[in-house]
Amino acid sequence: MAAQHVADRRDIDFVLFDQFHAESLTEHAMYADFNRKTFDMVISEARKFALKELLPTYATGDRQGVQFDRGTVTPPECFRRPFDLFCQGEWLALSEEPELGGQGLPFIISHAAGEYLIGTNFAFSSYAMLGHGAGKMIEHYGTEEQKKLFIKKLYSGTWTGTMLLTEPDAGSDVGALTTSARRNDDGTWSLYGTKAFITSGDHDLTENIIHPVLARIEGAPAGTKGISIFLVPKIWVNEDGSLGEPNDIVCTGIEEKMGLHGSATCSMALGSKGACRGLLLGEENKGMRIMFTMMNEARLGVGIQAFSHASAAYLLALEYARTRKQGRAIEEALDPTAPSVPIIDHPDVRRMLLEMKCCVDGMRSFAYYIALLMDHHRVSDAPDVQELSDDLVGLLTPVLKAYNGIKGYEVCIKAIQVFGGAGYLRDYTVEQIARDCKIASIYEGTDGIQAMDLLARKLGMKKGQVFMELLNRMNQTIEDAAGLAATQPLTDNASKAVNRLGDCAMAMGKTLLGGNLRTAFAHSLPFLEVMGDAVMAWMLLWRAATAARKLETGAPKKEIPYLNGQIKGAEFFFANLLPVTFGKMDALMALGDAAVTIEDKGFGG
Amino acid sequence: MAAQHVADRRDIDFVLFDQFHAESLTEHAMYADFNRKTFDMVISEARKFALKELLPTYATGDRQGVQFDRGTVTPPECFRRPFDLFCQGEWLALSEEPELGGQGLPFIISHAAGEYLIGTNFAFSSYAMLGHGAGKMIEHYGTEEQKKLFIKKLYSGTWTGTMLLTEPDAGSDVGALTTSARRNDDGTWSLYGTKAFITSGDHDLTENIIHPVLARIEGAPAGTKGISIFLVPKIWVNEDGSLGEPNDIVCTGIEEKMGLHGSATCSMALGSKGACRGLLLGEENKGMRIMFTMMNEARLGVGIQAFSHASAAYLLALEYARTRKQGRAIEEALDPTAPSVPIIDHPDVRRMLLEMKCCVDGMRSFAYYIALLMDHHRVSDAPDVQELSDDLVGLLTPVLKAYNGIKGYEVCIKAIQVFGGAGYLRDYTVEQIARDCKIASIYEGTDGIQAMDLLARKLGMKKGQVFMELLNRMNQTIEDAAGLAATQPLTDNASKAVNRLGDCAMAMGKTLLGGNLRTAFAHSLPFLEVMGDAVMAWMLLWRAATAARKLETGAPKKEIPYLNGQIKGAEFFFANLLPVTFGKMDALMALGDAAVTIEDKGFGG
Repeated sequence: MAAQHVADRRDIDFVLFDQFHAESLTEHAMYADFNRKTFDMVISEARKFALKELLPTYATGDRQGVQFDRGTVTPPECFRRPFDLFCQGEWLALSEEPELGGQGLPFIISHAAGEYLIGTNFAFSSYAMLGHGAGKMIEHYGTEEQKKLFIKKLYSGTWTGTMLLTEPDAGSDVGALTTSARRNDDGTWSLYGTKAFITSGDHDLTENIIHPVLARIEGAPAGTKGISIFLVPKIWVNEDGSLGEPNDIVCTGIEEKMGLHGSATCSMALGSKGACRGLLLGEENKGMRIMFTMMNEARLGVGIQAFSHASAAYLLALEYARTRKQGRAIEEALDPTAPSVPIIDHPDVRRMLLEMKCCVDGMRSFAYYIALLMDHHRVSDAPDVQELSDDLVGLLTPVLKAYNGIKGYEVCIKAIQVFGGAGYLRDYTVEQIARDCKIASIYEGTDGIQAMDLLARKLGMKKGQVFMELLNRMNQTIEDAAGLAATQPLTDNASKAVNRLGDCAMAMGKTLLGGNLRTAFAHSLPFLEVMGDAVMAWMLLWRAATAARKLETGAPKKEIPYLNGQIKGAEFFFANLLPVTFGKMDALMALGDAAVTIEDKGFGG
Repeated sequence: MAAQHVADRRDIDFVLFDQFHAESLTEHAMYADFNRKTFDMVISEARKFALKELLPTYATGDRQGVQFDRGTVTPPECFRRPFDLFCQGEWLALSEEPELGGQGLPFIISHAAGEYLIGTNFAFSSYAMLGHGAGKMIEHYGTEEQKKLFIKKLYSGTWTGTMLLTEPDAGSDVGALTTSARRNDDGTWSLYGTKAFITSGDHDLTENIIHPVLARIEGAPAGTKGISIFLVPKIWVNEDGSLGEPNDIVCTGIEEKMGLHGSATCSMALGSKGACRGLLLGEENKGMRIMFTMMNEARLGVGIQAFSHASAAYLLALEYARTRKQGRAIEEALDPTAPSVPIIDHPDVRRMLLEMKCCVDGMRSFAYYIALLMDHHRVSDAPDVQELSDDLVGLLTPVLKAYNGIKGYEVCIKAIQVFGGAGYLRDYTVEQIARDCKIASIYEGTDGIQAMDLLARKLGMKKGQVFMELLNRMNQTIEDAAGLAATQPLTDNASKAVNRLGDCAMAMGKTLLGGNLRTAFAHSLPFLEVMGDAVMAWMLLWRAATAARKLETGAPKKEIPYLNGQIKGAEFFFANLLPVTFGKMDALMALGDAAVTIEDKGFGG
């Protein structure tokens, strides 16, 4: 896998600067120090770093895996050098404020750079990335002292972080956790419990690890309302910032997984010697809310992870299809003397590639759009714009996470299919990408959990106004596309998609309000999927209109095939894939309840 | 994984005896020695053998993998004992004629037994199974001497077989192969060449391996018309059946794969010392036709493999969903004191399980139906019935192979999803099943190749009469279902599915006849998929009608939930999944050509 196969730079630039006009962000004071050139430079440097340092460790990290020996967790040896360079390069906090150790870049630019850092070797990146989320929680909810002690260390990657949430018997049901906390006389807390599935729970890449731990203070209410969050350093951090004694939190084992073999997934024991100390973060019993700062960031990160895997897999498949010769042109299929052609010439391969391209393009625009909303939230002077941007991010987060997880994996599997037999072999990388990608539908809340979040919490936000605003924005794009000859023919179906998405949302809302909870939630993931499809239609139409406008105003000759490709992608999506979405919408509107009414024994087994 | 999780015996019996009346096969002379009891016994013994001997080697075989050291291929050590027992138990040739070493059972019964043998550990079974196909070719095309030398050895598993077809530069394009053959004075042939991706190409489970090798006789025409097939034993077989010198065919390496780690995938060199000898099988230049005897069997086998993986994955997920407690009933979601419930109680989990059940049930009936057609072909006295049965098998083979490959894998992935985080771990088996299953869409002809076969060769067989007969048979089931209160409401949509499948076939045929080859083949796999969906609808309706009739006539009380489950499954498929198929049919009928007309450069990269 070469770096040019991780992400398509031309497409990144198209999304950033043509579709979303990222340059205009520099008009705001916060980003005034930047310009197109500095944005370009950051992305180019990320690409260069990923190419030179991360890429060579991708397959090796998978083969070496993580070792666990008597309490010691050892990541792949090949990760050490790039990890140090990653920290030195200050790649972790690109969009954080400079006074906290960040680069102060717009989110949309750090997302673009992140594509290379994440897509090249996520098993590697996962060691550093959770530390960022931990730092963010402390930035929002920590005491001044906590901020001083931890944030810069976490944002720089000097120390890494985790998220100690899941327990063996409390996975999706966080409220069932049993890890407990008791206040000590010195204001610290003693923690007791066991956590499972902890990414980067232990390793020796850094001298310290800061564990945010969800636990229940003795006597606190049951469920999520009695959960508090604590900062539990692997090595105690003294008030002056120096390191003290090792804390009583240890890794008791690591998991053998389908993929991400280079990433340590740990079981953790807290307080087995009665000496695990932590600091309360924020208020007592408000842990869930605080944790969601980190969780929402993690969910967006997973959506980007899945999309980045898909992007890498697509580009590898595309390269293979362009160079692998096999079979003859279909018009000459029966003539054995006809020359072999690259497999991209075969209609079925082209169909697969275009399906993959639509997914990857749409997901890229979708992810960057969310980053843009985060930038609007950050730089806008108007409180209503700020709030709306944040609400839209909230609405779209579960969709990005689950939809990209599902579709990103499908793209990876299609890449294997384009490679044929070679795709099943380790040597060709795509099978590893697929194995690594699969986790995206599972961790940080499964697809099912995201769909519940969307249906139960997000769809009805502000009486549905946030969702309606999303539909409005889709309609604005359609209006724009209607004025262009190339995209006008797509607008009828685009409008139908928006209207029917609205109908589906109404049907779901009615079913919920009617108290038919089970039927509604039996359609929650299909609803999330059609919403994701509609977002894809929106983004691809937007891209096509952007490309059409560039073509109308005279694009450089060498850009023309790429820009035409944007229009072809939209045409393909609207003709070949959107009818399937309409079929899904039909199924949803029918609100079949067989899954609810079938007896448990009816499943057989 | 326990054996009860490999295949659902009650469902097997339902398909065999209620849906397809397998007992009536004993009315034919060929099967007159059998009865329901003997059928039951064979299946029970297969189950017992799989449970006791194969199951314990499933995870171990994956971990141990295949070793290659200086030309020697060593399968997982744990496979040795079960392999010997597998041969002793005569499991390989259940439906072959007794005089050839077989058991003479109906195909449909050997399919049922095969579900356990294949579904429990396919990496193991793959060593033996190809020998069966090799034996079959010899049975059909071999000389009397060849039959005497090889068939019983292959059907008993005393020797195994392979299929040396693929070369590094001739995968899907078999006609491009360059392995050559030259006649020797003694009537044997000398072979030179290199083959790749050879399943069970070498191992030491048996003393000999018989390699059917596709090669081009020097001076033969280019393409598939110049291909002959040769039998190349690993150890030369003397005329008296004794073993002679080792032949000049060696394994030069094995592949590291995504899954099936226990199965040896070999690169083979023939004649590197100029001393690789083989026997011509059948006539010169007729190799492709002969090979298809084996290939068709292998393709059906892969369809059954994928379905068996799905069946095992479904049952594991079902068991997990019934026992894993997590979260509260949805009506009590906000009450932290409410008891935890098994996750099968959650609507989204039920939806996933019912989707999986529909796929597994439908695929089982589909696979057994093909076996039934093979039995009809074998036992019928009427030549037209014989021929039609064989033609229907030919028509449905690419659909079974590719559709089951696609849907079977989707079921495996859904099983991972039901397990959540545990699904990503090696300990819970489903991720291994998914990795093992993925190959089904690739080997013995990728999905794309199957779709071409369907569209270019099968759909138009006998001017479309075979396809029309399939639609007739679907309509017969609908007519039957219309007479039952439970299934009557489904029949409108069922008719619509059959009619629209006919429309799609017409549209594809017209596009082909109109010379628009590229557009037609850009829709070939989507066509195969909707045809597979229609077959699922047919099979699930047939099952539901069968269950409804049993319920109407008074089924034993303990059978009622299972039988109701059959009706619920059909209801779910018709309400939740068939509308999606209709959407796919809409897309197909629109015959979008963006994938054909997009420039190569338009794909980006």
